Amino acid sequence: MAQAPSIPKGVRDFSPVEMNKRNYIFDTLKDTFKLFGYEQIETPSMENLSTLLGKYGEEGDKLLFKILNSGDFAKSVVAADLEGENSNFLSTKICEKGLRYDLTVPFARYVVMHQNEVVFPFKRFQVQQVWRADRPQKGRYREFYQCDVDVIGSNALLNEAELVQIVETVYKKLNINVTVKINNRKILTGIAELIDEADKITDITVAIDKLDKIGLDGVLKELQERQISDEKIEILKPIILLSGDTELKLNTLEKILSVSETGLKGIKEMRTMFNYLKMTKITIPCELDLTLARGLNYYTGAIFEVKSDDVQIGSITGGGRYDDLTGIFGLKNISGVGISFGADRIYDVMEQLNLFPETVVSSTKALFVNFGAKEEAWNLPFVAKLRDAGISVEMYPEAAKMKKQLGYADSKKIPFVVLVGEDEMNSNQFTIKEMESGEQWKVGFEELKIKLL
Amino acid sequence: MAQAPSIPKGVRDFSPVEMNKRNYIFDTLKDTFKLFGYEQIETPSMENLSTLLGKYGEEGDKLLFKILNSGDFAKSVVAADLEGENSNFLSTKICEKGLRYDLTVPFARYVVMHQNEVVFPFKRFQVQQVWRADRPQKGRYREFYQCDVDVIGSNALLNEAELVQIVETVYKKLNINVTVKINNRKILTGIAELIDEADKITDITVAIDKLDKIGLDGVLKELQERQISDEKIEILKPIILLSGDTELKLNTLEKILSVSETGLKGIKEMRTMFNYLKMTKITIPCELDLTLARGLNYYTGAIFEVKSDDVQIGSITGGGRYDDLTGIFGLKNISGVGISFGADRIYDVMEQLNLFPETVVSSTKALFVNFGAKEEAWNLPFVAKLRDAGISVEMYPEAAKMKKQLGYADSKKIPFVVLVGEDEMNSNQFTIKEMESGEQWKVGFEELKIKLL
Repeated sequence: MAQAPSIPKGVRDFSPVEMNKRNYIFDTLKDTFKLFGYEQIETPSMENLSTLLGKYGEEGDKLLFKILNSGDFAKSVVAADLEGENSNFLSTKICEKGLRYDLTVPFARYVVMHQNEVVFPFKRFQVQQVWRADRPQKGRYREFYQCDVDVIGSNALLNEAELVQIVETVYKKLNINVTVKINNRKILTGIAELIDEADKITDITVAIDKLDKIGLDGVLKELQERQISDEKIEILKPIILLSGDTELKLNTLEKILSVSETGLKGIKEMRTMFNYLKMTKITIPCELDLTLARGLNYYTGAIFEVKSDDVQIGSITGGGRYDDLTGIFGLKNISGVGISFGADRIYDVMEQLNLFPETVVSSTKALFVNFGAKEEAWNLPFVAKLRDAGISVEMYPEAAKMKKQLGYADSKKIPFVVLVGEDEMNSNQFTIKEMESGEQWKVGFEELKIKLL
Repeated sequence: MAQAPSIPKGVRDFSPVEMNKRNYIFDTLKDTFKLFGYEQIETPSMENLSTLLGKYGEEGDKLLFKILNSGDFAKSVVAADLEGENSNFLSTKICEKGLRYDLTVPFARYVVMHQNEVVFPFKRFQVQQVWRADRPQKGRYREFYQCDVDVIGSNALLNEAELVQIVETVYKKLNINVTVKINNRKILTGIAELIDEADKITDITVAIDKLDKIGLDGVLKELQERQISDEKIEILKPIILLSGDTELKLNTLEKILSVSETGLKGIKEMRTMFNYLKMTKITIPCELDLTLARGLNYYTGAIFEVKSDDVQIGSITGGGRYDDLTGIFGLKNISGVGISFGADRIYDVMEQLNLFPETVVSSTKALFVNFGAKEEAWNLPFVAKLRDAGISVEMYPEAAKMKKQLGYADSKKIPFVVLVGEDEMNSNQFTIKEMESGEQWKVGFEELKIKLL
């Protein structure tokens, strides 16, 4: 009754080599988060649908994976539930739970449920899978990891600066050149106030973003097409043409936005934050980018986006400040700021630039070739001793043909094999062979150990 | 529109302290698996229901969490599907996918799907969550981690011995005293052949297991109640009364089972395996236990169970050899052997015996108290330098009251706070205070660094 096995579309198996590379990224992230005093939490894969529904917009609701109630799930379903446009209604009758769609809503739920145990400011990180019933395509999966780091319960802008430091530390360790783009929601609000067009702020940032490609005239034309009056476009012109370094830009903006209290507050926040970055001697490029408008529906202060300098792949890290994350669950006035690292994209960047260190590929340092029972008996205590010293070694489990055993070492990218036959046993020595060069030496046990350490 | 948040029953949030402790266990397991040359894989949380159904018995099928098809899932459902006992049939019409129930079936599916990439013997480990729609109760959850380590594609008994070595290494690192109980399915088959009662082997092992509690007469009575004839009970008597060390037991069994080819093969396997354990100088107690009968429906050779010597909690690790794991998916004659570590039970044992090291609790080594803008500016470069040296430090993000900042350090179990005011800045020094003793000293930066390393 054998069946040809398959897996659902949009999800993946990860092989040992892929796992080693992925763990290299995850470990770098986790170690860095800890270095800055962030602590890990985990939330369950399943949340009540009441926790998830309505948090990600209408489109998001559709992308939730729902879990069929166990037991006699259909007992309250009646024929009428099957009629017309009732699929959604029916699903609420037969499903109470759904799979986590992101880490942010479960985090908010966690903070509210555990508010009496949590110490504020709560610096937490979370590296877990999320699930989305999206149409699968290249680089978009139905199951993927998010790596979120947030601090909640503190308004201080030092937190924003610390997140940028985390970005710097992570990407230096991974050897990826990046640029951090920073904006502030309050500045965008200020611009909208200036021309009294709060609804069009996204249109405006999209248009400004095209300056390099279509030139000033192109941008102005696009703004006209978006029904922004000539008078208002005239007011926007100096913002479109804003240039110079961040300090200069902020000085210019301060003059332009002098009528907007919110806009000025945004500028002050940016000054404080960039000042912190200077104090901590940040070395990766960090620049003000007014066209950055991600997450406008929830960010209230800083907005971040990190791009690879060498691979065109969109943002590999992003985030911002949100002033009322936990309000949806009844805990008001808790401000937070956080960023999320995109592990799959980081993986793709590292693959393209060949940045994974050689050592990541294999965990086994040496394979002891198995020549038979007598040699096994002689070698096993030494194998155990090497492991006691923390060295990862294997003994091939049976006396297979030499070619097969060496092929095994080769496939697993094990750098050394150890050969012990009659000669070696008589002289209390080990022949160690370096797989890549093919060179081999006879050594004593202590020397072998040092070689493999 | 705030709602009081909750999570589904049977699943859990893990706080930072719990995560640190759990990671201590997971890291110990993973590091040990790697030390023995095992490599990690991951499979998706969702499998096709066709992969999962029928693999865990009728009861298991009921415990699978099924995922509602996305989109218009109910389009092919008709009113008749709702009638009578049709819940099961209906679920197959509206669900194609289910959540992973264990790691073994997905592993078999993985090996078959990737048979051309996999190098045999394939030594793999997998640490992932599984989901079961079981009735939640103390110590039983609907979402929990399994930690499996298996080698597939090798019949050699050295693999069995290696798994026992892994058990030894893990529990020595975790400081848990354990005993390994070992049985062999072939010996049990031999016993069944001896009295021609293949169906009653479980009844027999259950009865023999009670020898200590109910005495020989009790056991014999129980066997009679199980419809085993007096003549056959007479044959079983020397097996029930089997005593002495493993070698003695095997010698006695060899005589008793001399008529059973399978039984003798089992004895030979056990001799070889115990001999390997001797060669590798295993120090934890490993004993033959004929009453061990776990997984009788799929194990074909060795059967393992590991128990804590100091806490009564059932088996904390278990496994065995299975000769045809991948056959269900069309790949025949691949033998494997593996064990699974129960992370939740190991956690409970360590909590009860207070075995988690102090250092596990906090990741942050020192908190820099925040006295205001001037001190921040002075301290931030030093904070960055300590992190560059790999020391996890935090600066409180704002100049809150001293009591609040020290309370924060205390709650997070941060062992040191660093205080820098006017005096310290003038003399280029740092006051470091040990939280537990309350002692404090003034030190230079290098000394501070050494203290925190």
